[in-house]
Amino acid sequence: MEEQRTEIASLGEFGLIDHLTMNNETRNAGTILSVGDDAAVIDQFGRQCVISTDMLIEGVHFDLMYTPLKHLGYKSVVVNLSDICAMMATPTQVTVNIGISNRFSVEALDEFYEGIYAACERYNVDLVGGDTTTSEKGFIISVTAIGEVAPDKYVTRSGAKNGDLLCVTGTLGGAYLGLQLLEREKRIFLDSPGVQPDLQNRAHNVGRILKPEARADIVSWLQEKEIMPTAMIDISDGLSSEILHICRQSGTGCVLYENKIPIHDESRELAYEFNIDPTMCALNGGEDYELLFTVRQEDYEKITAHTDVYIIGYMTAPEEGTKLHTKGGNVHDLVAQGWNALATEKNS
Amino acid sequence: MEEQRTEIASLGEFGLIDHLTMNNETRNAGTILSVGDDAAVIDQFGRQCVISTDMLIEGVHFDLMYTPLKHLGYKSVVVNLSDICAMMATPTQVTVNIGISNRFSVEALDEFYEGIYAACERYNVDLVGGDTTTSEKGFIISVTAIGEVAPDKYVTRSGAKNGDLLCVTGTLGGAYLGLQLLEREKRIFLDSPGVQPDLQNRAHNVGRILKPEARADIVSWLQEKEIMPTAMIDISDGLSSEILHICRQSGTGCVLYENKIPIHDESRELAYEFNIDPTMCALNGGEDYELLFTVRQEDYEKITAHTDVYIIGYMTAPEEGTKLHTKGGNVHDLVAQGWNALATEKNS
Repeated sequence: MEEQRTEIASLGEFGLIDHLTMNNETRNAGTILSVGDDAAVIDQFGRQCVISTDMLIEGVHFDLMYTPLKHLGYKSVVVNLSDICAMMATPTQVTVNIGISNRFSVEALDEFYEGIYAACERYNVDLVGGDTTTSEKGFIISVTAIGEVAPDKYVTRSGAKNGDLLCVTGTLGGAYLGLQLLEREKRIFLDSPGVQPDLQNRAHNVGRILKPEARADIVSWLQEKEIMPTAMIDISDGLSSEILHICRQSGTGCVLYENKIPIHDESRELAYEFNIDPTMCALNGGEDYELLFTVRQEDYEKITAHTDVYIIGYMTAPEEGTKLHTKGGNVHDLVAQGWNALATEKNS
Repeated sequence: MEEQRTEIASLGEFGLIDHLTMNNETRNAGTILSVGDDAAVIDQFGRQCVISTDMLIEGVHFDLMYTPLKHLGYKSVVVNLSDICAMMATPTQVTVNIGISNRFSVEALDEFYEGIYAACERYNVDLVGGDTTTSEKGFIISVTAIGEVAPDKYVTRSGAKNGDLLCVTGTLGGAYLGLQLLEREKRIFLDSPGVQPDLQNRAHNVGRILKPEARADIVSWLQEKEIMPTAMIDISDGLSSEILHICRQSGTGCVLYENKIPIHDESRELAYEFNIDPTMCALNGGEDYELLFTVRQEDYEKITAHTDVYIIGYMTAPEEGTKLHTKGGNVHDLVAQGWNALATEKNS
């Protein structure tokens, strides 16, 4: 029997997910929000439960040559908590599945779990379960995070309206540059094992890639100030990609100002050292785990009171497209190159 | 720096989990039951939420040479639903993470998802999320299942009491024998690729390993008949291992009668063909996904009304130990050899 073969790469990650879930049906009245956002929402008689899950695979998502296991444990939890935060929910529990080959010792796993527990403590979250199994090759981690939110107070990607302000927390591009730095030092080390890695004065960028934080603080602040974002997403694939998700799912266009994108001084310096445009790192770098969200114009005063929230543009009618206004005064279409595209560019 | 290295194998799976979770703290009042049972229990303001998660890795948990992808998708969901059932809860949602190498086509993934959706439909469960990522090698699946239960109506492994009746659903050992059959046919095929596999009259055992079911029907029946088991677990590692879990976590001993263990006629035949003891398959085979539970003696009348529930023994005081009364009239200590031990024995 001859079979058709479509390469997965031909669909892309988001295309593949769309393809696989296009016939997905919802049967339970309690399932309020299903596939297609940062997390699912389940109604639990009065309180709503938010669920998100992610898989991390050695050699694909992390390199143990420069990733301490404790940091890896911490990050595995944090990237999932970030998805819960991106729903404006409070993370409460996690489950952690791991697949390990016998090259890992119990001491190595202890280090990994130290990181898991450190993240649980930092975010007041409980580790409630998990599966520990053998893998034929490499270290495989799958984390599911659960959070709670008051009824209908969760925020999706699809509520942004024409005229809403586009906001981002923290600084962007730092994690991508941290990764480039670690990759460079790895290459140097492999060429001449005696050379010590030169990570001095690079604490910011190394920290951004190895020990990201979820912006639970921002969620609490927004709740406290009674600011209800109209749409929200966390930045895991790069600013461009996330903005385009919100525009597509909300049915809007947008204007993004290059000169408003927050970039840390150390990231800027490092970008120049690598001969790459810091703005490109922020737009396409990914793994910053900051929050991107939209608020109504009447929240302008409130939102500018927080020193770590930046207004970087605004939402427009869909026919106006998704536009980047550069420092030089040019207007470009915003395109999602994402992490992989940039990585390829770098190597070419 | 010299580091200590303890081999993971030296602790065993359960020892490793105990080791890694011994310092686990619970911070959220909503976390009612954490690591150490079939699933966790979370209080959601009136209704309780039950969570379970499992990881399946190609080459460790399944062999794609004889596992159709649709069956694999179905089974990946069902084994998690079985854990939810083992809490006396009703499964409601699942999330599915997969890691895939580029050797898989979109059509192959479609088949896998057909199985996922078939299980969701069969069990009235919603697929609410998941992560699709690249793996360097093989197919990796991580499923998290969520269920609900009325407040404090969940059943743990730790409530069995001296004198309670020990019950099991369905028949045991069938999945293990099905696996032996598929492994044999694989070896024959690899030796002489022209030979067609001889699976005629083996539908029962092939079905048990490739397409197991979760006993949601038993949970509904118990609820309907208002029978509240004192302890419950699903049989994934073999009857011995699961009985010992209940005894250890409940602080009891037990008496198990060999002649009461339900074994399907086709399994018995197949066991004789393989020259193995059908009882050993039931005790140590695993992957049957039947329910093992204990009920109070006053539920005897009620429980015997179900034709697919078997009373196989009773619980005793802890000092009486965990005993198997054989057909020949001998009394042995019950030991958990589990799946791996049996597999090794078979090869030796």
